[in-house]
Amino acid sequence: MDTKEMAQLVTREVLARLRGVSASGQGPTCGIADLCSSCGRCVVAREEAVRRVMQSGAVRISASGGVGKVAVDLAQKIDHTLLKPEATKKQVESLCREAMEYNFCSVCVNPWFVSLCAKLLRRSSVKVCTVIGFPLGATIPETKAFETREAIGEGAQECDMVINIGALKSGDYDLVERDIRGVVRAARQTTVIKVILETCLLTDEEKVKACEIAKRAGADYVKTSTGFSTGGATVEDIALMRKTVGPDMGVKASGGVRTKEDAEKMVKAGATRLGASASVKIVSGKGGGTEKY
Amino acid sequence: MDTKEMAQLVTREVLARLRGVSASGQGPTCGIADLCSSCGRCVVAREEAVRRVMQSGAVRISASGGVGKVAVDLAQKIDHTLLKPEATKKQVESLCREAMEYNFCSVCVNPWFVSLCAKLLRRSSVKVCTVIGFPLGATIPETKAFETREAIGEGAQECDMVINIGALKSGDYDLVERDIRGVVRAARQTTVIKVILETCLLTDEEKVKACEIAKRAGADYVKTSTGFSTGGATVEDIALMRKTVGPDMGVKASGGVRTKEDAEKMVKAGATRLGASASVKIVSGKGGGTEKY
Repeated sequence: MDTKEMAQLVTREVLARLRGVSASGQGPTCGIADLCSSCGRCVVAREEAVRRVMQSGAVRISASGGVGKVAVDLAQKIDHTLLKPEATKKQVESLCREAMEYNFCSVCVNPWFVSLCAKLLRRSSVKVCTVIGFPLGATIPETKAFETREAIGEGAQECDMVINIGALKSGDYDLVERDIRGVVRAARQTTVIKVILETCLLTDEEKVKACEIAKRAGADYVKTSTGFSTGGATVEDIALMRKTVGPDMGVKASGGVRTKEDAEKMVKAGATRLGASASVKIVSGKGGGTEKY
Repeated sequence: MDTKEMAQLVTREVLARLRGVSASGQGPTCGIADLCSSCGRCVVAREEAVRRVMQSGAVRISASGGVGKVAVDLAQKIDHTLLKPEATKKQVESLCREAMEYNFCSVCVNPWFVSLCAKLLRRSSVKVCTVIGFPLGATIPETKAFETREAIGEGAQECDMVINIGALKSGDYDLVERDIRGVVRAARQTTVIKVILETCLLTDEEKVKACEIAKRAGADYVKTSTGFSTGGATVEDIALMRKTVGPDMGVKASGGVRTKEDAEKMVKAGATRLGASASVKIVSGKGGGTEKY
């Protein structure tokens, strides 16, 4: 190998690693620990890792487009997700059609799409899930509660809210709890509330604290990630969250579920739902695409 | 040069490029066109480009930490910014102290910090700026208006709102305008409203359309970027926005202002404010740090 070839090889390898895929042909790799690009391909690229996440108690898993085929029984565990800000009505209509065709558990969309999805899915069993205070979680409790009430009024049946990460890190646990409780109250026990911790930004102590607070505040699930930060779910985080909240509360792993194999591992490990934007590819093996969210 | 040296060189170069700085010693470079990492160092790393942005009519420029020293007259044009979700109260207190010490135009923080900043800055000339529907812009107009009213009630004097990007791309211009108008009305002409287009996700036609709508809806500024997407301001975008909105509306370039030199170029080119998290380093040359937001 001469210097030119070496330079090209290293360049390909570094860039590929930053995208979570190996260019070396030695199987996929993922730089999640150091340079996670939130590629959303964990269920393909890190099959064993995702399987461990599920075995650790993950209830749902998020994934992005471009993943392979997964078993049909996974479909009912999938939150079929499209959260990128530039998503259009046509793309969301397609998302809803896919969700009905493949019998996904829900579509997960930004709030301005809730009414459209509720209309399109009204005769189906597919739920409408939206996001609250997303993805930074840094607005005030009153706004999160307002946003939740409006979303429910427009037809949302599940709401994934982001905790106030800065308040948690500032030790203001009262605010973190009030924030979650406000959303839970807005849901009036008719709407599933999932609490996104954004684990990649937290210490283990903060993850435990957030789980305890979410449970005390009456939330239904704890969830690892928004998909918009520096990393997704890890086996260790799922295990820690499951251990902290106990067996009765849901745990959703998000941030990289993209293949049938990984999704199957998740379910076998105990997951009750998978959050994914690569959902169709997961259950059908069809299509390409590299949707991130 | 042997293969090992070559491999090390290429690796350094690729990683450095991804961070917007050249490792080759041939002066800074930036991969904004292909691999922008929103490093926030444009005012250092792309001095000439930032100068061209200012000459094109940019009124404000955003920048991140770790930039060098800039002229004091720039301070009054800077929105001193800290929007990362994990920011703590202590960090925001420091932000406010810096803003007073260096006489920045405003601090730009997430909504849950508005009341704290308003309290800390009440005897100073530093304004409190916050963000609305940030950073995706994909919530409903009612929530953005609510969030704006709450923020103003808690002391916000400027609000940077994100447009509904998906609605723009769906051709739903009525919704885009209603969204902005709701925030402008909530401001009741006492609060400056800046409209973030997230230009990196838009075509030129969409940028023009967004500027026209923002102007018609009564906003005070158009602004390029959130700093949380795939890229920041470009000279071409600033020129296009300035041309579209005319001379009386503000134009703020955000996404990479980090050095004295770049900031000075921006001002010389016509900028009336610079948005930056690297503000202290810009005006004092002190400190290191690599804050992204």
